[in-house]
Amino acid sequence: MTSSNQESRFKPAPAPAVRRLPGYHRLAQKFHGEGVETVSCTTIAEALSLDPTQVRKDIALTGIVGKPKVGYEIASLLEKIESFLGWDNVTDAFLAGVGSLGSALIGYKMFRDHGLNIVAAFDNDPAKIGTTVREVEVLPMEKLPALARRMHVKIGVIATPAEVAQDVASMMVISGMEAVWNFAPVHLDLPPEVIVEHVHLTSSLAVLSSKLTQKLKERHEN
Amino acid sequence: MTSSNQESRFKPAPAPAVRRLPGYHRLAQKFHGEGVETVSCTTIAEALSLDPTQVRKDIALTGIVGKPKVGYEIASLLEKIESFLGWDNVTDAFLAGVGSLGSALIGYKMFRDHGLNIVAAFDNDPAKIGTTVREVEVLPMEKLPALARRMHVKIGVIATPAEVAQDVASMMVISGMEAVWNFAPVHLDLPPEVIVEHVHLTSSLAVLSSKLTQKLKERHEN
Repeated sequence: MTSSNQESRFKPAPAPAVRRLPGYHRLAQKFHGEGVETVSCTTIAEALSLDPTQVRKDIALTGIVGKPKVGYEIASLLEKIESFLGWDNVTDAFLAGVGSLGSALIGYKMFRDHGLNIVAAFDNDPAKIGTTVREVEVLPMEKLPALARRMHVKIGVIATPAEVAQDVASMMVISGMEAVWNFAPVHLDLPPEVIVEHVHLTSSLAVLSSKLTQKLKERHEN
Repeated sequence: MTSSNQESRFKPAPAPAVRRLPGYHRLAQKFHGEGVETVSCTTIAEALSLDPTQVRKDIALTGIVGKPKVGYEIASLLEKIESFLGWDNVTDAFLAGVGSLGSALIGYKMFRDHGLNIVAAFDNDPAKIGTTVREVEVLPMEKLPALARRMHVKIGVIATPAEVAQDVASMMVISGMEAVWNFAPVHLDLPPEVIVEHVHLTSSLAVLSSKLTQKLKERHEN
């Protein structure tokens, strides 16, 4: 193992920058559709209410080089972002928990365009096992480990209730999965080498509610 | 208008701290269920892999005061977080876009416990209009403005396709809504006083994919 060497050679891209790249891609695609051929950082920054310097730094991560006073070639910008984010290389994933959120995630067409292909879903509910959701088969949870190993599936999507999310995540990791996309509203305790990305809808809602509560309170007090 | 005075009197709570509060609440609820009566910052920090000082600062936002060497009374901690996040005061919301994601959001029971009650849904698709999703009626989009005004609905949830999200958001704001929870993968251009919280699934997926791509690349190069 040369993990410290690896770390010194590869600097991980900062997550906030990576999070902004899909927005640049979306905008570039829009311009592309309108027949525009080049775009500058300033134009992108204005359209997305961002700082041009930040946009330039973010885009530099993908390795593209812009031309002074012209900007980026849009076709090349699209390609570089897609390659940086792995969108040109669709990765198979398993989803656990076929409730309303899990079913919606299976049906979310956009994921395929963004590099994620949910190839099988798993649940414990006998009423769900054996059905298909948007052509994806629902299998019993206990089949996940053997199938993940056989198919070398690296990404697990968790849409189970909070109570079982930790067990499911641990099972995924034991089965050789290396990245977990967690939609269950719970903290997961996993080995540090496992990549975990949370979508905590309740946290997002908390920010919205607390801002609104404060705004309405201020108005009442004036 | 005394908006500058308001700003000086009320410091907005930092969003990252607010985002962590639901996690503390979840953990406190778990301890509460186990009959535990008090909890310290250190215990919370360890359980969630966070820094104790950060946990203390976050929780202080709610106004609760802990006892030295004992920590917080759990019942009181739950109450303070709920009140800070507005969970004790459920707010009505309208949802626009009854696709698979929108339907899942309507059916997500957790939102009600977290202060959000989706009371009506709107769509343009004649096949959807007039149906109900989990007892929530789907109405034609053009009815949104009048209903929002009559019912004083303050929160709009956007689960439409990206192409129409801006128009829907603008319509919500014109109809008196003050907060928009946006699930469409697009930047929204709204007046600065409107509260906007984005859930960009493609950005979250981008972080996951780029980390996994990098990890697999490093392994190949070793």
